[in-house]
Formats: sequence, structure tokens, C-alpha cells
Amino acid sequence: MRTDALGAAVDEALRPAIGTALSGGPAGAAALEPLVREVLGALAEGAARRGGPVPPGAPDEITAGVAEALRTARGPAALGRLTELLAHGSADPADPACAAHLHCPPLAVAVAADLAVSALNPSQDSWDQAPAATALETLLLEELAGMLGYDPTEAAGVLTSGGTESNLMGLMLARDRVLGAATGRQIELTGVPRAGLGAGVGARPRILASAAAHFSVQRAAALLGLGEDAVIPVPVDSQLRMRAGALAATLEACVERGQLPVAIVATAGTTDTGAIDPLRECAELAAEYGAWLHVDAAYGGGALLSDRLAPLLDGVELADSVSLDWHKLGWQPTAAGVFLVRKSETYASLARRAVYLNPADDEEAGYPSLLGLSLRTTRRSDAFKIAVTLRTLGREGLGRLVDACHELAVAGARAVSAHPRLELHGEGDPVLTAFLFRYVPEGPADGARTDRVNASLRRRLLREGGAVVGRTELPGDGPGRVRLKLTLLNPHTTVAEVERLLRAVVAAGETEEKL
Amino acid sequence: MRTDALGAAVDEALRPAIGTALSGGPAGAAALEPLVREVLGALAEGAARRGGPVPPGAPDEITAGVAEALRTARGPAALGRLTELLAHGSADPADPACAAHLHCPPLAVAVAADLAVSALNPSQDSWDQAPAATALETLLLEELAGMLGYDPTEAAGVLTSGGTESNLMGLMLARDRVLGAATGRQIELTGVPRAGLGAGVGARPRILASAAAHFSVQRAAALLGLGEDAVIPVPVDSQLRMRAGALAATLEACVERGQLPVAIVATAGTTDTGAIDPLRECAELAAEYGAWLHVDAAYGGGALLSDRLAPLLDGVELADSVSLDWHKLGWQPTAAGVFLVRKSETYASLARRAVYLNPADDEEAGYPSLLGLSLRTTRRSDAFKIAVTLRTLGREGLGRLVDACHELAVAGARAVSAHPRLELHGEGDPVLTAFLFRYVPEGPADGARTDRVNASLRRRLLREGGAVVGRTELPGDGPGRVRLKLTLLNPHTTVAEVERLLRAVVAAGETEEKL
Repeated sequence: MRTDALGAAVDEALRPAIGTALSGGPAGAAALEPLVREVLGALAEGAARRGGPVPPGAPDEITAGVAEALRTARGPAALGRLTELLAHGSADPADPACAAHLHCPPLAVAVAADLAVSALNPSQDSWDQAPAATALETLLLEELAGMLGYDPTEAAGVLTSGGTESNLMGLMLARDRVLGAATGRQIELTGVPRAGLGAGVGARPRILASAAAHFSVQRAAALLGLGEDAVIPVPVDSQLRMRAGALAATLEACVERGQLPVAIVATAGTTDTGAIDPLRECAELAAEYGAWLHVDAAYGGGALLSDRLAPLLDGVELADSVSLDWHKLGWQPTAAGVFLVRKSETYASLARRAVYLNPADDEEAGYPSLLGLSLRTTRRSDAFKIAVTLRTLGREGLGRLVDACHELAVAGARAVSAHPRLELHGEGDPVLTAFLFRYVPEGPADGARTDRVNASLRRRLLREGGAVVGRTELPGDGPGRVRLKLTLLNPHTTVAEVERLLRAVVAAGETEEKL
Repeated sequence: MRTDALGAAVDEALRPAIGTALSGGPAGAAALEPLVREVLGALAEGAARRGGPVPPGAPDEITAGVAEALRTARGPAALGRLTELLAHGSADPADPACAAHLHCPPLAVAVAADLAVSALNPSQDSWDQAPAATALETLLLEELAGMLGYDPTEAAGVLTSGGTESNLMGLMLARDRVLGAATGRQIELTGVPRAGLGAGVGARPRILASAAAHFSVQRAAALLGLGEDAVIPVPVDSQLRMRAGALAATLEACVERGQLPVAIVATAGTTDTGAIDPLRECAELAAEYGAWLHVDAAYGGGALLSDRLAPLLDGVELADSVSLDWHKLGWQPTAAGVFLVRKSETYASLARRAVYLNPADDEEAGYPSLLGLSLRTTRRSDAFKIAVTLRTLGREGLGRLVDACHELAVAGARAVSAHPRLELHGEGDPVLTAFLFRYVPEGPADGARTDRVNASLRRRLLREGGAVVGRTELPGDGPGRVRLKLTLLNPHTTVAEVERLLRAVVAAGETEEKL
């Protein structure tokens, strides 16, 4: 018979071991099983308690709740307590009223696959930390290169943390093709004075990108030592699309100033409107000026999954490098970024021998190494969940999800157009799955007031837990540029739910304009 | 009654929906449950079929198996099939004979927490994609800053993909303090000629790091446009530790050449021997020369969890910035990197207003934004699993795991010393949890032959599925520099298991030296 005292003593003796079980080895799955069950229970509880797209409350209220939980959660109860809190305190993209950002609701099958990666913890920086995962990443990248229209036997690539890292890599390769920065050597520039990075205005390398390109292009230029103002913005049309004529004129002016256009960044799917730059014309101009063409298809790359939308990306196969994000139109949990180059021989900057990771005699003995492909060293196998998803649904199955979101955006934009108090930005149907619009207050047109009402109605929806709607500003200066945004990435959302969301926007606008 | 034909029709009608369930929302946990169960079963099967630390076979055999599975796996069966394959094809750090790299076996509780993050998919680039996760990351970083000895009210930081990204960030801040690279403006340098990045040899910014510092320091210099040869190696002692006198002499010589030492990188835990540079002396020299001090404690930061080992990091609190990796001595699944700066006002390079992510009026209304802290935009909540682990085990519980691995390394190194055919590198017990050694073939000393035997015995162990042992080379030139390495990160491994692993090394060496 076990007395309470004995029980307590046994518990005390076992206490140090609590929580130290590992996820790997023959016993790993059994150790995971009760913990995973606890997580699933807490996820369900947290979602039910939230009861909507986002918890109501101001940020400091959310922070206070998290601080309290961190202060008091201890021991075996911490997992369930903190998971319930995270679930309750989420902006849940699986809720039809959470439609602000390129922030997708992951597929359950991708999340389950990601659990296997967490448990096994392969690291892609050496074969002997990831035998099967190394092969899988290589094979998946060949498949994605083929989907893009690259010759898979000539292309190369790597999984990244997302478009920001992929854009950085493309611009790094563009820079290093001209300036031998990887080795510190300076390569003579043709036709412009020899100059250091960032030095002398006349000879600085320039990057041309549309005025609606992602801010990570400027960030990359700064990180690479080129300076943010090395990025020359090319004007866009009202739908935020770069026009080929504007690019040609900007290139011409750049060269006339004695500057060196080292790279053109074409966007295939701007964050705000999904606009796709004219890729084929961009490729022709890049070839003419000897510039590297990087296509930021972090968002629009998803169109490649849909037979109907894939033609939008005509010409992407001519790019020197491409960013794709499977955590946008691919329904993967973050991160699932992909960087691809058309010709593997252009991918030299990162080639590196680390004697403890990829010694020469190991490579001679047939041990492959992905180390020289990534900016990172330790690296999770983000390819695995993508491969599982592709095999579960097929490109066709994923394409149906892309089409569903596109149709939803088309219906939503038309509903906006039809509403007397809402104003759609731009004309025609959305290119991909996002569109801009705004609430129009009663009374005479007043850009500054309209901006204030739209910005505050969005915060009202957030604070009340009713909806998560995007907010952005059109390029340019002055008032009247604030726009709301819907980014529709939940393929199970119905048109009726989008219409309900728009009614909530109008109701919040009516309240705000009276304040 | 349902006929087969009807059943087939129903199946057909349902087919498009297979695999499209989401992980979020009120139904997410229920959708995940059978998939997670399948994953756990497949993990157990794969581990059992592997039956050791790594699958036997040459890389091309592993690749062929993966290619076959990718060719044939389809539909709902893909998840289980590919998971079993990934588990079978893993180098499993939970196996006592897998002890090559800073590649830890994750705690089951951390993996379960990571499942919640995958399912909810918060993204740290805006509050409205991650309300609770934003608060949690901020609070966790304050706690980690305090653990390091920083004043949490003055420090700032961010979760990173690992030491490589953290080291890059530290060196970016060091560069931008001197050269206004973020804006493209050039700041006048005091005492040296004004110069562009990478230009004119005399005035180039220099980074001083030990000869045993991680290669990511060179990589960062290249990426930042400074050139790899901006990194000046400081000589190390036989245990790969930088001596303060050598650093002082190198700094002096650097300044005498008219160069600008913008940063010193001190390593707290070299990859190969766990050596910790003299941090306090490095901080004094950095102050004297006006250089930024970055401490790469990606590995050694784990010592902060142990009362016994924490004094090894004396002086880390004086660093301007620090890298910590919780996916090393912290038993987290990748990635769990941490970057911290002592003074938040030095953390300016990435400050950025993206109108669609952190508009000014949102920040005025109290909505915090982590966007300006990270090199990434979309970003997974890697803080969550660390917070859950810290609360489950406490710093004390984690410290016991650190101590266990340290003791194992001490016992392993002593066993090497005691073995007539093994030679320990360096003297004394291992600093952290790794040590270098080699097998000594019979016959007259022959460095080149010894190198070959050690390199090939390691590949033999790998090929036969018997063990995953590290291999590296000592700094310098010429033969005789190849060393084997054990990195002990599994706190459940016993001394007897380490001794068995060493016997396997000797047996493989005996076979190889006869070939």
C-alpha cells in the first residue's frame, strides 16, 4: 500500500526528471504522445475562449495576461497553460474575419509534417546531421525549379526563412557578380570608375525596383553595404504595376548619370494589390543592360500552382533568381521560403569549405553538402512539410485552393464596388487574392479625415475582436492615401463571410465617423 | 444500403477535400489529431527500422530511397510514408552514438510547444499577426537579458535563425555605427581617410576575431560588403582560446597600419573545443580602441544555465551584443537563436516604417511592433518553445542537463587519455561538452597517414550506421591536423555508452589502418 507520504516522496524523487524526455530515439514518439495530446486540447480550448479572429482588448491587456502566465506557470502544467494562452492570444488566419496580411492558415497536414521535423531535428548544414532531409531538399528544389520553368539540371536553390532572405540572396549574387565582395577583392567595373561600395555618387551600383516593391529590397541594399538609396524606384501605375516603358526610361537615365544598374527586381505579386510586373519585358531590359533580374514572387509564385493563373507569371523562367514563399499561397506554417537561381554556376558567393562540416575528402567520397547554398549554418528542414503537402494534395489540389482564394477576392472586390459607402482601389478584378479599398465617410471629400476614419475603424475592429483587416497607404505624399486591405488566403471562407466582414467594416466606419 | 458504386461516387466527391483541413480555428485541433497520431506512429516505426544513430548506406543509397518515395507517395498515405522515411533517414542526436555536432536532441516538451506554433502560425512582423506571441517574445528577451547580466530595461533583442544570423546582426550594428550604411550616407571617420566600404586598403574597417572563431564571421563580413579579408585572425593557444595579449598586439598593429578596428568578436565556446575567449579583457580592449564587442556565445551561452559553469562567461555582460543558441545547449528544435544588445539605442539599423505593418498612428495607439528588430519580415514564434521549456524545467532543471553533458565530456576525454590508441587534443578537462582527439595508427608517426585513417574511419562508422562522430582540422597548414570530435549534448547518455562509442572508433581505426 502506498501512503500519501510515500507518494509524495516518490513524486519528489521523480521531479528532476519531469520534462527531460527527448523527442528522438525509439522512445521519442511515446514521450511526445501525452504532450501533443495536451497541446491539441489547449489549442481547442484557447480557440474556443477566443471565439473569433483575434482576442478583444488593447495590446497592454494582452501583454498583462502573458506576463501573468509567465510569472506563474511552472512545471508540467506550463505547456498546457502557455499553449492555451498562445491560442487565445492569436490572430487566427483560419478565421474568415482574419484577412489582413499574407499570413496564411496552415494546412493541418503541413503542420503534422512539421512536427516530424521538430522531433527529429535534422540540420541541413551537413549530411551527417540530415541524411534523408538533405536528399529531400535537393529533390524538392529540382521539382520546384521545373514548376517555375527552369531547367532543373541547371538550376540550384535553397530553402529560406522567406522572401526577405530570398531577395537578399538574389541581390547579393547580383552585387558579387560585379564586385568581388565575397573575397574582399574589388573587380574592375567596365565603363565606370573603380569605386568602393557605397562610395562616390557617380559610380555606385544601382538596383532598380518598382515603387511598390517590397521594403526588403531597400533593407537588402543597406545590409549589403550598397546603401538604401542605391535602390532607384521605378514609377508604377494605379494598380501598383511597374510599366516596362518606365523601367526602360529609368535604366536609361541611370546609365546616363554614369551609374551601374547591377540588378532589376521585378515583383510578381505586390503585397498590397498582387500586381505582377511585366516579367518578360523586365528580362529583355535586364539582358540589354547587363543587369541581374531577380523576381520577387514571394506572393505571386503561388499562381504557378493554378493552371488558370500560371500564365500571369509568363517570363519568370527568364529570371536569374526568384523568391517563392510557400507560407503565403502554399498554406505552410512559417517558414517555407524558397530561393532559386536559373544557373547554378552563378551561385558562387556562399561556396565555403568548413573543415568540420564539409571537408574535401568527404565530398570526394560522395557526401553532398548544402552548406554553400545558404546564408545560415544550422538550418531546419523546411522542405519536408512542402514535400508532404505537394504529395498529399498534388499541384492540382493546391491549385484548387489558389483558385478558391482568387475567386473569393474577385467576389469581395465586386461587393466593395457595389457598396455605396465603400470605394475599391483600382479597376477590374484582383490579380491574385488581395485588394485595396476604403470606407468613405459622409460629407464633403476630406482626405485627412477619411484617412483617420479608416485607420481608426481598423483598430476598432481589432480592439473589439471583430476582425483583422489590413491597412496600408498608396505610394506618394499627402493625405487621402490610407487604404484598407483584404488578403484572402483561407480557401474555406465563403463569399457570404467576406460580405459579413465588409458589413463589419462599414459599421465600424459609421461609428468612427461620428466620434 | 450503400453500393460500391455509390461509395466510389461519394469518395470521388470527397476527394478534392482530402488534406485541405486547416490547423487553426475551433476545428483545427480535431483535424490535427489523426494526422499527428499518424506522424507519431511513423516516427516510432522509422526509428525502429533505423535501429541506430544513422541509417547504414552510402549517400546515393539514401538519396535513391528518398527519390523513390517522392516518386510514388500520393494522397493521404504520403504523410506517414514520408515521415517514416525521414525518421529512418535521420542522424538522430537522441542516440548516444550520434555525437558529432552542436546538433542537440530536442526535449519532447519543446517539440510539443513548437507544434502549437506551427498550428497557430503567428508571425512576429506585426502585432495583428501575433498579439500574444509579440508580448511573449518581448518578455522572454527581457528575462534572457537579465540571465546574461544585462540590465533588462536597457537591453533589446530578437529571436534569430541561429548564431550565423546573430553574428551578422552584431557586425552590421558595428559597421553601421561607423558607416551610415543603412541610409547610404557616409559618416566621416575620425582619424582615417574617408572611404567607401571595401575600398582603399589603408582605411578599411576591420573585424578582429580569433583564428578559431566561427566561419560565419567571415561570411558576415562578405555579406556586409566589407570583404572576408576585413576579418583579421587573432592567434589562439592550443585549446583554441584567444589570448588577451595576442588581441592587444593585433589591435595595435591594425591601428599602426591606419586601419579601423570596428569590431572585436570574442567566442564563448568554439565549435571544436568549447574554448571561451577572455571576455573581460576583450571588453577592456574594445573600450580602449572604440570597437564594438560582439560575443558569439551560440554554444557557450548554455553555461549561463548552470551555477557551476556560469562563471566561465564572466564579462559577457560587458559585450555590446551577444549571440545565444537555444538549439545547442538548450535542447530546442531548430531554430532558437537569440540576439541581444546591451543598449537598445545602439539597435538602430533596422528601424523601419512599413505602412502596411507598423504605421505611426498604430504605434501611437499602443500597438507594439517587432519589425525593426529583425532582418526577417515574416517570422515564426521561436520564443514560445523556449518559454515553455524554461517554465517546465526552470533554469535549475536546464542547468542540470548542462552539467550532465559537461560531466559526460569530462569522462569521455579522460577515457580517451587512458586509451593507448587514442590521443586527446590539448590538456585538462573539456571546458564545455566537446573535445577533440584522434586515433593513432601503429607504426612510425606519419601525419598524412594519420589524417587519412581518421577521416576514413569516421566515414566507415557513418556508412555502417554505427556512429556519427565529428571530424575537424586544427588551425594551420600541413598534415597531421585532422581530429575527431565528440560533442556531447544528450544528457541521458551514460559514461558506459561514451566508452562503447570510443571502442567503436578504435575498432574502425584498426580496420582502416590495415587497408
